[in-house]
Formats: sequence, C-alpha cells, structure tokens
Amino acid sequence: MKYTVAQLARLLDRSFQGDGTRQILKISSWESADSTSLVFLEAKHKGDIPPEGPMAAAIIASPGLAAPNWTAIISEKPKLDFAKAAQLLYPTPRGSGARHSSAVIAADSTLGAGVDIGPQVTIGARARLGEGCILQAGVVIGDDCILGNHCVLYPRVVLYPGVVLKDRVVLHSGVVVGGDGFGYVFDGERQVKFPQVGGVVIEDDVEIGANTTIDRGSLGITRIRRGAKIDNLVQIAHNVDIGQHVVIAAQTGISGSTVIEDFAIIGGQVGFGDHARVEKGAIIGSKAGVLPGKIVRSGDVYWGVPVRPLREYKLLNALFGRLPEMKADIDALKQKVKMLERHPKDGEPPISRLKG
Amino acid sequence: MKYTVAQLARLLDRSFQGDGTRQILKISSWESADSTSLVFLEAKHKGDIPPEGPMAAAIIASPGLAAPNWTAIISEKPKLDFAKAAQLLYPTPRGSGARHSSAVIAADSTLGAGVDIGPQVTIGARARLGEGCILQAGVVIGDDCILGNHCVLYPRVVLYPGVVLKDRVVLHSGVVVGGDGFGYVFDGERQVKFPQVGGVVIEDDVEIGANTTIDRGSLGITRIRRGAKIDNLVQIAHNVDIGQHVVIAAQTGISGSTVIEDFAIIGGQVGFGDHARVEKGAIIGSKAGVLPGKIVRSGDVYWGVPVRPLREYKLLNALFGRLPEMKADIDALKQKVKMLERHPKDGEPPISRLKG
Amino acid sequence: MKYTVAQLARLLDRSFQGDGTRQILKISSWESADSTSLVFLEAKHKGDIPPEGPMAAAIIASPGLAAPNWTAIISEKPKLDFAKAAQLLYPTPRGSGARHSSAVIAADSTLGAGVDIGPQVTIGARARLGEGCILQAGVVIGDDCILGNHCVLYPRVVLYPGVVLKDRVVLHSGVVVGGDGFGYVFDGERQVKFPQVGGVVIEDDVEIGANTTIDRGSLGITRIRRGAKIDNLVQIAHNVDIGQHVVIAAQTGISGSTVIEDFAIIGGQVGFGDHARVEKGAIIGSKAGVLPGKIVRSGDVYWGVPVRPLREYKLLNALFGRLPEMKADIDALKQKVKMLERHPKDGEPPISRLKG
Repeated sequence: MKYTVAQLARLLDRSFQGDGTRQILKISSWESADSTSLVFLEAKHKGDIPPEGPMAAAIIASPGLAAPNWTAIISEKPKLDFAKAAQLLYPTPRGSGARHSSAVIAADSTLGAGVDIGPQVTIGARARLGEGCILQAGVVIGDDCILGNHCVLYPRVVLYPGVVLKDRVVLHSGVVVGGDGFGYVFDGERQVKFPQVGGVVIEDDVEIGANTTIDRGSLGITRIRRGAKIDNLVQIAHNVDIGQHVVIAAQTGISGSTVIEDFAIIGGQVGFGDHARVEKGAIIGSKAGVLPGKIVRSGDVYWGVPVRPLREYKLLNALFGRLPEMKADIDALKQKVKMLERHPKDGEPPISRLKG
Repeated sequence: MKYTVAQLARLLDRSFQGDGTRQILKISSWESADSTSLVFLEAKHKGDIPPEGPMAAAIIASPGLAAPNWTAIISEKPKLDFAKAAQLLYPTPRGSGARHSSAVIAADSTLGAGVDIGPQVTIGARARLGEGCILQAGVVIGDDCILGNHCVLYPRVVLYPGVVLKDRVVLHSGVVVGGDGFGYVFDGERQVKFPQVGGVVIEDDVEIGANTTIDRGSLGITRIRRGAKIDNLVQIAHNVDIGQHVVIAAQTGISGSTVIEDFAIIGGQVGFGDHARVEKGAIIGSKAGVLPGKIVRSGDVYWGVPVRPLREYKLLNALFGRLPEMKADIDALKQKVKMLERHPKDGEPPISRLKG
Repeated sequence: MKYTVAQLARLLDRSFQGDGTRQILKISSWESADSTSLVFLEAKHKGDIPPEGPMAAAIIASPGLAAPNWTAIISEKPKLDFAKAAQLLYPTPRGSGARHSSAVIAADSTLGAGVDIGPQVTIGARARLGEGCILQAGVVIGDDCILGNHCVLYPRVVLYPGVVLKDRVVLHSGVVVGGDGFGYVFDGERQVKFPQVGGVVIEDDVEIGANTTIDRGSLGITRIRRGAKIDNLVQIAHNVDIGQHVVIAAQTGISGSTVIEDFAIIGGQVGFGDHARVEKGAIIGSKAGVLPGKIVRSGDVYWGVPVRPLREYKLLNALFGRLPEMKADIDALKQKVKMLERHPKDGEPPISRLKG
C-alpha cells in the first residue's frame, strides 16, 4: 500500500507539517531510509539528529522534535503511530483462494472463501477453515481442527487433531499446537502415561513465535486468550491459561495448569511451576523462576529465582555482592570482641595494638 | 474401545460398587464428564465433592471416598488406575498398512507389516521399519535408520541417517534425532568441526516431546534407555546416556557425555555441564544447574545453581532473604563495638545514649 | 575418502612413525576402533593406555605418548589434527544436481550448477541458489532468498522471504531463519505489532543447530558473521549481531539488538537482555544472565545472574554457602556484645558463663 503524508496523518488522527503530498511507500530505519520512507523519532531518542532531518518522505515525531523545515507527522506517541502506519502500509496478507496441487486435503474438510493452501500442506478429516486463511508450505492441520477467519500459518506449523484457532491467529514456522501434555504416573516400575485427551483453544489476534510448543489439555483445555503475544521457543504445558494481551518472551516455560492473567508481561527464559498464578498486569523479569502454586500479585515487577519484588531483589543482589565485605566485618568484629572480652576493663585500648 | 464398569474393574484388578453394567466410553474431568465418562478422586483431593457424586458412568476413588450410592471402582491408587483405564479406553493406534501416494519411499527400504505412511513422508535408502509403525505427515527417515515395531512418529519428525529406534517409541512433532553434536576445536583462527559420526539409539517405550533435539554421538552413541520420558524443547547433546524410566521436563539441556542414571527425575529448564553424572533415582528441581563433571548422588532432592541438596538450598535461600537484616546487625555491632572500644571501662553504659 | 598413514601425516603437516602404508578409512573412538580406524590421544588423557596401543590403523598422539611399536602421527595438537583428519576423510557433501520430482520450484528462481533438491522441497519466487547447495527433504526457501555456494540445509529448514546465506552455511533440521522479531507497542488496550520488515544475513561457514530460531531485523539486519557456530534451540532476536567465529551453546537466548563480538564463547542457557554487548573474546558461562545494555568486557570469564567475573562469582558463591555460619557468627556476636555492654567493667569474664 502507499499513502501521502496527509492521508497517513489523517488515518492516524494526527496533524502534520510540511509537504503533505509526498508519497510514503515503506517504513525504514534512519540509516536505510530514502525519499519514500517513513521514519520516527521519540523524545527519549539519544544521539545526534542532523538538522536537515532524515532522508525520508516524512517523519513521525514528538511535538517539538521536528524542525520547522521537516515534513513531519506530529504525535504524542511516535513509536505507536509508526507501528500503526506500518500496519497500514503492510496490511496482513489475506488468502485469495490459491491451492497448490501438491496439497493433501481431506475430502470432508471445509475451506472458507479465499483460503490459500501452499505446497505440501496436509489438511485432516473434518477440518474446517474460515475465510481467507493462509496455510504456507508444509503446514499440517490435524483431523477435526477448526480455524477462524484470516489465520496465517507459516511453513511447517503443525496442529494436532482437534485444535481450535479463532480469528486472525498467526503461527510462525515450526509451531506445534496440541501435542500431548507431559504427565505420567509411576507405578513402581515404570511411568504410565496420564491421559492427554483435552483440547487447545487459541483466541483472536494471538501471535506465536517460531518453534514454540503448546500442549493440549490433559482432560481440560489449554487456552491462549485474545491478543496474547508469545515469542519463539516457548513451552506452554497442558491446561495452562494465558490471559488477554499477555506478552511472553522467548524460551519461557509454563508448567501445567498455571494461569497468567490479562496484560501480564513475562520476560524470556522464565520458568513457572505448575498451578501457579500471575495476577493481572504483573511483570516478571527474564530468567525468573516461579514456584509451583505461587501467586504473583498484581501491580509490581518481579525478578529472581524464586521471584521477589524487584526492589527487594535489587537490594538482596547488591548485598550478595557485598558478602566479602560483610564476612570481613564479621571476622574483624569477632577479633575485636575477643579482645574486649579479654580486657573488659583494661585501661589501655586493647584493639589499638592490633591495628597499629 | 468401551468397557462396562465391571469389565474395567476386573482389568484393573479392583473391586467395584454400584451398577457394573454401565458403559464407559471415555475418561473426563469432573467438569466435562457425562453419563459415559470415567472420572477419578484421590484422598488428597481438595474442594467440595457433591454428595450425589460426579455426573459420570463411574468413578475410581480411594477407599472410603465414594458414597454408598455412587457407582465406583475402589482403588488404592486412583490416579494410576485412571491412567491405566485411559490406556485401555484409548489404545495406542497401530498402523494398518496405509501408504499415502505422496510419500517418497526408497526402493531398498524395508517396511514391516501394517506400517502407515502419511502424506509427504520421506524414507531413505536401506531404512528398515518394524511392524505397525505410524509415520504421520512430513516425517523424514534418513538413510539406514532402523525402527522397531509400533513406533509412532508425529508430523515433521526428522531422523538423521543411521538413527535406531526400538519398539513403541513415540516422537512428537518437530523432534530432530541424530543432528550433529556441537563440538569444535579452535585452531587459533577459526573453529574446526570435531567429527560427529556416532549414532543414536532410543530404546523401547521412550516418548519424546515436540521440538526436542537429540544429537548423535561424536564417535560413540547417544542413548535414551527404555521407558524414559522427555518433554518438549529439551536438548540432549552428543554421547549423553539417559537411563531407564528417567523423566525430564521441558527445556532442560544436557551437555555432552553426561549420564543420567535410571529413575532419575529432572525438572524443567535444568542445565547440565558435560561429563556430569546423576545417580540412580536422584531428583533435580527445575532451573537447577549441574557443573561439568559433577556427580549428583542418589537418594536426595537437589536445587539451585550450582545444585545443592534441597534442604541446604532452602536454608541458604532463606538466609539470602535475610541479608538486609544481617547487614543491619553487622552495622549495629560495629557501632556498639566501637563504643565499647572507646569506653571500655567507662562507668556509664555507652550504648544506651545511642539507643535512647 | 581414504588415505594411507603417510598421506594423512603429510596433509596434516606432521611426522609419523611405524607403517605409513596402512589404509585409514574412518575415525573412531578407542572402544569402537578397528584396523581401518584413526584414533587420537592427548597428553591430558586420563586412564590406562594399553601398552600394545589402540586397535587401529594409526593414532594421532602428542610427542612422547606413542610407544615406539605403535603406528602414529605425532602432533602437538592431536585433537585438532584428528578433527582435520576427519574433514579429509568425510568431506562435506556437495550437490550433484539431483532434483526430486516432488519439489516445488518457482519458475523464476535461479539454481546454480550441481544443486541438489530433495523431496517435498519448496523454493520461492526469485530465489537464487549458488553452486552445489544441498536442500534436503522438506526445506522451504522463501521468495527472494539468496544462497551462496555449497550451503547444506537439512530436512525441514525454513527460510522466510529475503534471507541471505553466504557460502558453506550449514543449517540443521528445523532451523527457522527470518521469522518476525518480537516487538509490540502497547496502545493502552492491546499490543500493536511493531514492524518486522528487516533482513537476515548469515555469512560464510556458519553452522546452526537443530530447531534454532533466528529472527529477521525489525527495520535493520540480523547478522551472523563468518565462522560463527550456534548450537540447537538457540534464540537469536531481531537486529542481533553475532561476531566472527563466535560459539554459542544450546538454548541460549539473545534479545534484540545485542552484539556479540568476534571470538566470544557463550555457554548454554545463557540469557541476554536487549542492547547488550559482549566484547571480543569474552567467555560467558552457562546459565548466565546479561542485563539489557550491559557491556561484558574482553579478556575475562563471566558467570552468574547478573554476570560477574568468574573469580568474583566463585568467591560470592562460596560465601553464599557459608551464610549459615555468618548468621551464627552474627548471633553470637550480638550476644557477646550485649554481655559486654551489660558488664563493661565487671571483673569477671561475662561470656565465659555462657560458653561453659
């Protein structure tokens, strides 16, 4: 897509200055921008800004940051408006009904209008796909899966049987949804598999990164709620419930039946024991560890293994770094006290000789 | 499959009460159960139990937990028997000889009776598959691989050449077995690849979760022994030896030549240096770190980075949380001792003025 | 390939002793060696060495380690020469122009001489592949990708559109290159996707392990420089820059825009915040955590969360283990000081009664 500066400003509901007729074809970084680019500048930007401004069609900038001679869209939230502009310039692709001859599509599956099916795709029995879905090369849709409208599945995504995706779900390459949860009961000699016969539901506008794995519920449902965003190589175990608009960074692992409530933000490489709960909007830093059954309260930032409020963690970590000094203080105190005990009423200062 | 309550009780070698003629078609959670469901109830169950019992065909319950009016199978181990019942109700599927026309099967490979080959499967030269194996869509079997009987490979599993699976091995989607181990020798200018020409053997009844990677031995063998269960996104390096019935949770990584002995239980996101050893039956908590060459002894539970016995770890972690208090105590002691040193024989209590 | 002992010694630029005419067909461990094997022995070898030497065609050994009756290549760096010998014995396979009929190759793509295309491969529009590349089963090459010469892509590798590989890049099964980076801007109600429209460049001789994910730049480029080696299940985020000959072990995660300079060595399960920098040749131990924006200096080994120089970490960890003793010391000191305060000039030793 392309827009003039004036069109884009209007769509973003922002004012602009300079030449509103310039064509914007793409977004760019400052380094790679050219005369068809849109760039952005935030108030917290560090570093030099050339007085002639960026080599770009236009800039989205905080009020006061754009020089009078620049063509600029003025925004209180330049990064957010830049992201919105990108969505206008690069609309999510929607299927047009292309079907590659190498795809293997069950006769009793149902495909909505405008579904694109790439090479080597497999669609199982009784699967139902909504309008405009795009299934790229090598995607496998298990029997009885249900997809809403306008889902995009990148190459080699696998849905086990019975998985449900709502609308506009985006799954990146190598994502596996609906594999068996990890549950066994030891009978004294061997591990007996606990049944993994539940389902997975992924709601509207969820996006999931490459090679992430999401297990089916054992008896119930694993659920990823509306608008949640999950990075690469994340593990979501059986019966986990991820809230709306939650963000989870790469390589985090969430054990069975844990609940992450709406708007929580989870860093990378975090680990959650089972049956834990993160309350609405809580923030958990990277590499943190949450014990089984733990409740992480709203309204704070958490860090560490096991998680603690960030302020507390920082204090403890600082003191951890001062352990040598604390140890030395204790040793000196022991020495001094020993001297005091020996000479409790000796007229001469007993320690001074040691010091000197 | 379906069973009457009486049949199932007999197969589980348990007694039952109530209507033994009821048909059981499935297992369910209490919430989703209906008149054809089997549910279970353990003594440690928390929460209310409706006096009329579950809406189910029958319940497996600990002695004394089932009201007299319920139809129930009475078991000392309800969860284990529930798992066993599930295996009866949902027997592992076995191949029936279906071969999809899109599969690419080397002419000199050997397929046992009843092997199912899904769409887009590739089977390499001289590969040999035992009876009743199921290869789902897009599985790749490298040259010279050998599979036992009744293995199930979910979509997109990849076996590099020469991998050996024994009987009833289950590999979930995206598992990669037999990739090169990670070994290089620095020649002063660049990393020279150390040869990775060994093999992988995965024994009977092993199950491996989605997107887990298992490297081939460099010169020797990477081995996963009978009955071991490995979760999603786990990394098993070259020459690792995983013992019988070991359980390893998600995202754990095991470096080269490390040995995990039989019946050990390893949490999620644990990391093992190379040439470490976990003795039989040891338990290692999630997120722990085991140093290279470390021996983790039998008969205990371990935690932390580096691992320590859990009791010790708990004590240390509690004291870590009390560092501010310890620091304050030290500072107060320093002050008091300074006063004592100044006034070792002063008649008045020198500290009281500070306190008061 | 096969070589005589004399040929191999000459190619390695080393001297040999014994029977130079023996044929070497393979490398082996001592345990699995036979009369056509090459084995090696380093000075730091522990354990018994049978006086008759290995059952092998020849051994590469440090000076003085090989008995006079052994056939041996004498090397100051036996392991390195063993690795080099392996490269001679097992040269990297190069394509010969085989094309499987099931592959789907865009009409406007360009394939160099001797490119091998396996079953179920998909090659997108305008893609260009250099000479002798090997694409194994199920590889997906997105539109506009550019591959240099002699790249090897194992089964199921996915390149998103526009990815650039230089020469001799090796990607193991399940690697995903060029997926969207993980960036969102919260608009107060939902996460708005920040554009991920940059590229990925992977330079000469890079090798990347199974199921590793490498995201495209958001606006700029994600770059893996010449000779870098990356293990399995690693996450490389948008705009990361990995230096030449860097080594990164399994399950490490690197957040956006972080820079790892040349020759750095990174352990497994390490986590990097965004915009961090590791200076040339620094070594970071497994499970370490590097905070956002942190600079890790050259010339040292680092450990811990957050990272500290190893010496410091070891000291702190040792003191951490002594916290119970420190706590006990503090408590004893408090008691003693209390006694001293009570009896500052009392004639009798006030503590002795407690002790006794």
